[in-house]
Amino acid sequence: MHQEQRQRTVQLLQQRGIDQAVFAHPESLKWLLGFAPPVNAGPSLFTASYPVLWYNDGKYTLITVDAYAALAVPIAEQADCAVLTYQGYTVPTPIESGAKLLAAFNEVTAGKISKRVGVESQYASDSVVSGLRKAGAEITPIDEWLHPLRTIKTADEIAILRRNFQLGDIGHAAARKATIAGNTEIEVWNALESAIQAAAGQRVPLGNDCVVGYRDMNIGGWPGALEIRPGDSMIVDISVIKDGYWSDSCATYFAGERSKQQSEIMKVITDALAFGKTLLKSGAVCKEIDFKLRKFVKDAGYSVYPHHSGHGVGVSGHEAPRLVPYSEEILEPGMVIMLEPGTYIPGVTGVRIEDGMLITENGCEVLTKHDKS
Amino acid sequence: MHQEQRQRTVQLLQQRGIDQAVFAHPESLKWLLGFAPPVNAGPSLFTASYPVLWYNDGKYTLITVDAYAALAVPIAEQADCAVLTYQGYTVPTPIESGAKLLAAFNEVTAGKISKRVGVESQYASDSVVSGLRKAGAEITPIDEWLHPLRTIKTADEIAILRRNFQLGDIGHAAARKATIAGNTEIEVWNALESAIQAAAGQRVPLGNDCVVGYRDMNIGGWPGALEIRPGDSMIVDISVIKDGYWSDSCATYFAGERSKQQSEIMKVITDALAFGKTLLKSGAVCKEIDFKLRKFVKDAGYSVYPHHSGHGVGVSGHEAPRLVPYSEEILEPGMVIMLEPGTYIPGVTGVRIEDGMLITENGCEVLTKHDKS
Repeated sequence: MHQEQRQRTVQLLQQRGIDQAVFAHPESLKWLLGFAPPVNAGPSLFTASYPVLWYNDGKYTLITVDAYAALAVPIAEQADCAVLTYQGYTVPTPIESGAKLLAAFNEVTAGKISKRVGVESQYASDSVVSGLRKAGAEITPIDEWLHPLRTIKTADEIAILRRNFQLGDIGHAAARKATIAGNTEIEVWNALESAIQAAAGQRVPLGNDCVVGYRDMNIGGWPGALEIRPGDSMIVDISVIKDGYWSDSCATYFAGERSKQQSEIMKVITDALAFGKTLLKSGAVCKEIDFKLRKFVKDAGYSVYPHHSGHGVGVSGHEAPRLVPYSEEILEPGMVIMLEPGTYIPGVTGVRIEDGMLITENGCEVLTKHDKS
Repeated sequence: MHQEQRQRTVQLLQQRGIDQAVFAHPESLKWLLGFAPPVNAGPSLFTASYPVLWYNDGKYTLITVDAYAALAVPIAEQADCAVLTYQGYTVPTPIESGAKLLAAFNEVTAGKISKRVGVESQYASDSVVSGLRKAGAEITPIDEWLHPLRTIKTADEIAILRRNFQLGDIGHAAARKATIAGNTEIEVWNALESAIQAAAGQRVPLGNDCVVGYRDMNIGGWPGALEIRPGDSMIVDISVIKDGYWSDSCATYFAGERSKQQSEIMKVITDALAFGKTLLKSGAVCKEIDFKLRKFVKDAGYSVYPHHSGHGVGVSGHEAPRLVPYSEEILEPGMVIMLEPGTYIPGVTGVRIEDGMLITENGCEVLTKHDKS
């Protein structure tokens, strides 16, 4: 599991002369190991910190609180990675998870600390960083080093993403049904959330937006108690986060008949998305795709969306390559890219449609099969 | 808003000779300001870090990404706290939220950095901490300093907690109805989650457990696809997290008629909870409450729960005072305490019942009114 990811990382660290490193960002642990607690593995009284992955000369050791042992041990076995757990929650004695994490870390490093140690400093436990400094190490921040390595998805990652896009499709079918006059935004959300969780057989963290068109800020936002009126539009933008990977997808639904204006806007944005898909191919430059898609909407006479044209997805919801005006990144086979043209009339209506595509040798394959309207 | 919290903090920092500090833990910002994004304000590409609250000689300045300006500005105005936002997401130019946060931080501190600066180091942005070190500051970790100050709830906090406990009650009513043979754990969860979110008119992050009695590990866990059979027990433990504050509550439901054994266990644990409430009064020592409640269950002939007897709630789900064997903490009026006796027969059935109580001058007031079974 995730062997290719670890190999890419070894290669990168060797190129940059780093032989010891601490990975601590939850995204890095998902990507390097597939370590993805179903809901939450944040730092707490009981865990001291996010889990820590120690890299030493091509070998990995996962250090995590004992509560995650059942999750971590089989993953690490498949990944040929050592695991050391430390005591977190305990009834009879005070909880000292920070000190116990440091003790475990010291046991793993056995005092053999290099002069220069790479650290994902934004997420690494303070006790571990202090321990490294005391051992005389210079800390090299490596917080974004893995980002470029993550752009090309492995076959396993594509399989997980396909499954997550399918769960998003299930949510969209429920959201479309629930978009009827008299329902509220949160009721639409409850419908899609329940449908996704029932299909997944577990709790599923979800993003992103569920907003009625008459909001002033109708581009996105969390659902509230606003009621849908006859003819209202609803933007429903769903990310499904399962096994650590994010899907994404957006549709625009209508409560009953569409106005002439709504129908026109839907046609323009539907056409924009179709046009955008023709631009997604190996070798395309991201900023050029962004430019052309904005121009398409502008030339049709509509105000251009104030957000990106699209972005990659993976262990995070927005990642490289990003379809933005300044990105020189070049598409390659194996990237998974969202495209999301839209146009918004504040307080009246808004339309956004978003699909996810796998870049192939000859173009792209659409991974989202959700209702679009 | 939250003036009393900030005053207690000024007093503490003055006592300890700290005149400058960085608060960065989301719990601290909720507690000091009431700054509580509805779903998520974690560090990301767009935000660089959690918001940072700079404390300088009795004055507070909130530094947050511009995306949270609409949330932060009115809160800070009510709190007599300055606000500075930095640019996070931007379409035309690359995102440099880390550098922009540091620039904002430098603008606020204006180069006047004390020799010794308190920092919530586990959550403070690495760019801010590095900036302080470069300015010659010694970092004093203050990560848990606010915990003891948080134990006594203000009137405003108690009002929020009451409302959150009520939302939990609504979830329990839905869960009890949904505990019928043929439903799955996740279907029970969908029912309670939808009921709470519909009542709140927004998304509501929820904890904790929803597990059928025939699980081997039937103390707790996230709901899965396991089907409820006739006569099965279900432990449903709900935390509602709204406006940054956590409620808590647990009940045990049955699909149809209870067995003799289930009825007996329910009686013992119901009696244990009632007994526990008689122990909750100003002046009581936490470890003694814990000891007596465990003894009650043991004397009744049942295996004692392998978890704490209870704990405080507030801006976190588990906080001081905790009812555990080693806690010398003493109850005081204004504390809000959970009590949660239980007993578990792995693979067969488990019972836990949990209520939340406000400690008063003369005893306690029960804040939870949920179905218990």
